[in-house]
Amino acid sequence: MIDLKQKILAAVGDDLALIETALADNLNPHFDLVRQVAGHLLFAGGKRLRPLLMILSARLCGYADRASAAEYSVIFEYLHAATLIHDDVVDGADLRRGQMAAHHKWDPPTAVLTGDFLLARSLSLAARTRLPDVIAVIAGITEQMSQGEIRQLTYKGDVRLTEEIYMDVIRCKTAVLFQGACRVGALIAGALPDTVAALDDFGHHLGLAFQMADDLLDYTQDTAVLGKNAGADLREGKLTLPVIRTLQQVDAQDKAWIASIIQSASFTPSDVDRLIALMETCGGIAYTRDLAAAHIQSAKKALAAFSPTAERAILMDVVDYAWSRAS
Amino acid sequence: MIDLKQKILAAVGDDLALIETALADNLNPHFDLVRQVAGHLLFAGGKRLRPLLMILSARLCGYADRASAAEYSVIFEYLHAATLIHDDVVDGADLRRGQMAAHHKWDPPTAVLTGDFLLARSLSLAARTRLPDVIAVIAGITEQMSQGEIRQLTYKGDVRLTEEIYMDVIRCKTAVLFQGACRVGALIAGALPDTVAALDDFGHHLGLAFQMADDLLDYTQDTAVLGKNAGADLREGKLTLPVIRTLQQVDAQDKAWIASIIQSASFTPSDVDRLIALMETCGGIAYTRDLAAAHIQSAKKALAAFSPTAERAILMDVVDYAWSRAS
Repeated sequence: MIDLKQKILAAVGDDLALIETALADNLNPHFDLVRQVAGHLLFAGGKRLRPLLMILSARLCGYADRASAAEYSVIFEYLHAATLIHDDVVDGADLRRGQMAAHHKWDPPTAVLTGDFLLARSLSLAARTRLPDVIAVIAGITEQMSQGEIRQLTYKGDVRLTEEIYMDVIRCKTAVLFQGACRVGALIAGALPDTVAALDDFGHHLGLAFQMADDLLDYTQDTAVLGKNAGADLREGKLTLPVIRTLQQVDAQDKAWIASIIQSASFTPSDVDRLIALMETCGGIAYTRDLAAAHIQSAKKALAAFSPTAERAILMDVVDYAWSRAS
Repeated sequence: MIDLKQKILAAVGDDLALIETALADNLNPHFDLVRQVAGHLLFAGGKRLRPLLMILSARLCGYADRASAAEYSVIFEYLHAATLIHDDVVDGADLRRGQMAAHHKWDPPTAVLTGDFLLARSLSLAARTRLPDVIAVIAGITEQMSQGEIRQLTYKGDVRLTEEIYMDVIRCKTAVLFQGACRVGALIAGALPDTVAALDDFGHHLGLAFQMADDLLDYTQDTAVLGKNAGADLREGKLTLPVIRTLQQVDAQDKAWIASIIQSASFTPSDVDRLIALMETCGGIAYTRDLAAAHIQSAKKALAAFSPTAERAILMDVVDYAWSRAS
């Protein structure tokens, strides 16, 4: 896994440097507070996965202008950062990327307005492309993401949340951004409709697998690796597939116990341990991992339609890396 | 003032009906919670001033399609509602349009996400026009509004807030939306650059005057008329021109007293009365009113460049109505 990460970093090092510069430059004309609050999250070691997906998708379709690609790609990191900042306010999260969440380090009003600024900035950058198709994708992403977040909030702590609703929520809140990044990469390269659709499909499946991997990590990794508290999702009343599947499989007594810890405001580390043991016994973890693996395969299948270029190889590595987090 | 309002309503009644329908329809495909939360504010008696400015500007430039104009105009009401909902979270406001603010009636997370949805929806509607100039205006509005709100927050309770900063804040948080609505009206009508610039200028001055009038009302009207608590701005640490000007004019003792009530978490109705008396004695109210009147004149001057059509007459009435609120 470390080798894979190094390999990817070596292949996209120049792009990453351009992304970092563009991320900072596009905050620069603006005043101190925004730069501090937005920078606090933006420069705390994000993987820049979404901008990289856009850049690599563009290059896969023959787009050669690295500097412009990096400039556009910032849109996807800003959008991502905007939703993280608002989500942390909404969830009352303590930690993000291993440090204090913005609404704690500053206050919720500052976090709300900084999120608004980043959202607005990404739409301004999209408008600057003057490409109606690109702009429509970005606007659609923001709309679907906010709907996904609202749907998730509606089902907060609700054990009636089904697998179908979960899939729709993670599609809206995560996959549409991956999908949009890949689609925009193809669009700015002037790719043909079939090619655009293939990259769209690739991003969709990768995004779903990535979010499921993330939801697994919440139960399989400790705080130091995760950069936030383990079991944090459940503490926030957020039911993810490992829990949803477990609730379907356990007996009435265990089901009532899970419902009770979800509804209680706080629960102990030993509650989390017992829940994880249940998830392993009844296959909630394995079920989620298998479904994520199926989406990983679909993502690879979408990529396989492209010629075996260096860009395709890096994207395959990115898929493997995303997957290695969960397995 | 009532006659003027009736006159305007009679002239734009058909447009208002189309706006109301479009406002509801564009929420309809979406789920219950959003419709409830967004509808709570959207259908609580807003004046639809921003959509009307867009529609009347378009018609002034010869745009004849009433239904399309109403459809586009929704963008400006949604943007306005999004910022109101987020501002009320940021300010911890109790009342809005005479009823409980969304973050009280539901909770801050729901209010944050509903604001995000309305923002995203307005950008989606903008993208649907597929007109890069229109989209750039809308994106620019969202960016400047968020910057204005952040700047305002930065100076919360800070008596060092100058008139210059105040003017920049009200330009960003209010005038750019008026200006953008008028500009977009001209753009969709395919107006020539000079005409676009004239309507832009009109919206800019009207927006500044409108916000100054609003800031005056906070000290000159009671709660029942205002739909929110009188003196609410100061209670939220928001210094507006009547106070800024007063701080420049009073002696050191009164200045220290004003600073102390601004810094105290709560202050009494008699504090507000004493402050208003000071603002009247030293000309803070009159100064603000005179400056607003100057911007009203600039707005009328920009309109005077157009042929004397029915649309121009209604826009003149709208200006007079906006102004009648403050005088």
